[in-house]
Amino acid sequence: MNIEAETIAALERARAAAPRMALATTAQKNDFLAQLASSIRKSQAAILDANAADLKRARDSGRTGAFVERLTLDAKRVEAMAAGVEQVAQLADPVGTVIEKWERPNGLRIEKVRVPIGVIAIIYESRPNVTVDAAALTLKAGNAVVLRGGSEALNSNACLAALIARALRHAQLDANAATFIGNPDRETIQVMKRHPELIELIIPRGGKALKNALAGSAVPLLPHFDGLCHTYVDRAADLKMAEAICVDAKCSRPSVCNSMENLLVHSAIAKEFLPPLAARLTAAGVEIRGDERVCKIVADARPATDEDWDTEYLDLILSVKIVDSLDEAIAFIERHGSRLADAIVTDDAATAARFEREVDSATVYVNASTRFTDGFEFGFGAETGISTNRLHARGPMGLNELTTYKYVIRGSGQVRV
Amino acid sequence: MNIEAETIAALERARAAAPRMALATTAQKNDFLAQLASSIRKSQAAILDANAADLKRARDSGRTGAFVERLTLDAKRVEAMAAGVEQVAQLADPVGTVIEKWERPNGLRIEKVRVPIGVIAIIYESRPNVTVDAAALTLKAGNAVVLRGGSEALNSNACLAALIARALRHAQLDANAATFIGNPDRETIQVMKRHPELIELIIPRGGKALKNALAGSAVPLLPHFDGLCHTYVDRAADLKMAEAICVDAKCSRPSVCNSMENLLVHSAIAKEFLPPLAARLTAAGVEIRGDERVCKIVADARPATDEDWDTEYLDLILSVKIVDSLDEAIAFIERHGSRLADAIVTDDAATAARFEREVDSATVYVNASTRFTDGFEFGFGAETGISTNRLHARGPMGLNELTTYKYVIRGSGQVRV
Repeated sequence: MNIEAETIAALERARAAAPRMALATTAQKNDFLAQLASSIRKSQAAILDANAADLKRARDSGRTGAFVERLTLDAKRVEAMAAGVEQVAQLADPVGTVIEKWERPNGLRIEKVRVPIGVIAIIYESRPNVTVDAAALTLKAGNAVVLRGGSEALNSNACLAALIARALRHAQLDANAATFIGNPDRETIQVMKRHPELIELIIPRGGKALKNALAGSAVPLLPHFDGLCHTYVDRAADLKMAEAICVDAKCSRPSVCNSMENLLVHSAIAKEFLPPLAARLTAAGVEIRGDERVCKIVADARPATDEDWDTEYLDLILSVKIVDSLDEAIAFIERHGSRLADAIVTDDAATAARFEREVDSATVYVNASTRFTDGFEFGFGAETGISTNRLHARGPMGLNELTTYKYVIRGSGQVRV
Repeated sequence: MNIEAETIAALERARAAAPRMALATTAQKNDFLAQLASSIRKSQAAILDANAADLKRARDSGRTGAFVERLTLDAKRVEAMAAGVEQVAQLADPVGTVIEKWERPNGLRIEKVRVPIGVIAIIYESRPNVTVDAAALTLKAGNAVVLRGGSEALNSNACLAALIARALRHAQLDANAATFIGNPDRETIQVMKRHPELIELIIPRGGKALKNALAGSAVPLLPHFDGLCHTYVDRAADLKMAEAICVDAKCSRPSVCNSMENLLVHSAIAKEFLPPLAARLTAAGVEIRGDERVCKIVADARPATDEDWDTEYLDLILSVKIVDSLDEAIAFIERHGSRLADAIVTDDAATAARFEREVDSATVYVNASTRFTDGFEFGFGAETGISTNRLHARGPMGLNELTTYKYVIRGSGQVRV
């Protein structure tokens, strides 16, 4: 069988399983999740064996460092997967929730009710735990899920997918509701993106290569692409607070999308604010790249290039610019930001209000670190990703964002004419 | 200038106008709408002159009937456009509405706030009033709009677009917030669909040709495509109510998407229910196409072909099938319906509940006509179209569906680490 036919057959299995999955009861879904958690714990040895095979292949092909680290499972990570699945079981079932209801003058009673989206494909790389996390969340929201992991984690993913299938059967659910694409050829992604009649939504979790592979997708995407976040320290900022926020936004986890890449500082407080901040950042290993005025104030700063202002470093590097007004800061963020997370530090209410209103980002902060752009930090109880889309879902996503709605209209014989 | 460069230049003008339009105050937007309504009334003669030129061209090229009817403006229709704009001014401004808010244990206060989507392109055909209706609604929701009407209405649309631009300037808004694509070449649509960095959303309002032209769009679509609606008359139906609902669903306006195309009748009541219904429908000019059992009961019915069950007639034709159970009805709707609007007539609460839950359509009716699938009938106060998408917006759309949201997070120095 060729890749196209094989992939389509897999998508069709998921498609066929979707209607029944959509009608699964909360008890069935939680039963599945409980069974999966227990089965992950019981199968720890088999999971680690499969993972060892992936790790051997990765090392044999010369992979090292962060790549191998992301791929690696150990007893602690296996337990974390199981615990994560149990957490999803604790979350309220979004399906069937009445979002809004009202009655029309003619007596029609309209309810807007949450329902599953249908078939959701998750395309991901290297981290085998995504197989379990993504399946738990999409299935809890009543969707069928197509899991397409990276070739580097094929053995680990296949092992976990088999546990998911077994747990679905245990709960009297269709095992095809979680369909694993076992062929690691990238052509499978090309096939998936051409079949909106089989998949309602693709959630990609990967880097630039995946983004390019999905260009022109006929299936809607809920991507998580770039995160180029700003912090603007206003002239009316509490400088101690601003320093703590900047250190957190840059240093607490520089490799993630919600960490700060560009710092803007109002000229009126730059001389007082920047030297002590720079000292702390430098001590924490941060390289500072500044505009001309910054380089005069901060001894260790090297000049920033035009490219720096548009670069998501995901590393211990920070570009710093001095601005003369709120307007300049907002215009800079509009030009260089990725509209994911941007913050202002200020004690001036009017300035804060303008920043909130005029900065067009998924998450806009006043006096807090951009690092809070995260499903858990928002209280969603789950990490289903952060959307850089404007439509359907924007910013941190919870279970609700994996659903859509329908209207149920109850009458007593109403007609229009 | 070639079509591509010219179209991109137009899109870029709209793009540039979008941020300021997003910040327009409610007063400014309503000022614009009031000015537009008054200017439409004052310019009636000019509008009708422009329309006369379009009508002459249409007749010269042999167009007749419904095509010419849709294209035609008269004093009454011009007044209706002006009144429609005034109605939009009355609607609450969705921008800035707080959809949800909560406080986190760490003191962060999170607000989910409605904001405009950005640049919305409306691609439409023949009806010049869409120029005004679509502009009024998208601009009221704070978006910039790109208007791309059909070549047949070019003069009428250009005249109305000029009034819109003037009214925007009158309200101190950027006239480019409503950018009219004056080139009627269909290549403009191909250019538009390739530029997601310039347009956030395309709302197509047209038939199969437009659907095909937009295939593979890189810009998200909020389409209104097929409407193949069912009514299922259950064995426990109030037959008088069922008859009234069926007549309304088929006959009140057969040319629209929410009218009934397939009727399913439970075998237990078919002999009692169908003959009087058929008599009323036939008297109203409806042609009935039935399965074998229907043809035995209804003298005038001709046999339905396999194709009939999948055909959206948009005409006085009805396909009728007898089923033996609720399950058979639901399975039939899943196979043949377009998931827009489907109804059950029943007095049995358990049967109604199963139908509501298991029929996966944007609008599911119990004891009412499918013809209520409509923004005005839902009480949205405006007709921004009916989405056949599953994501972002599903079913009848109001002003809210022309917006997205952002999160505003207010803190007092919170950091994650």
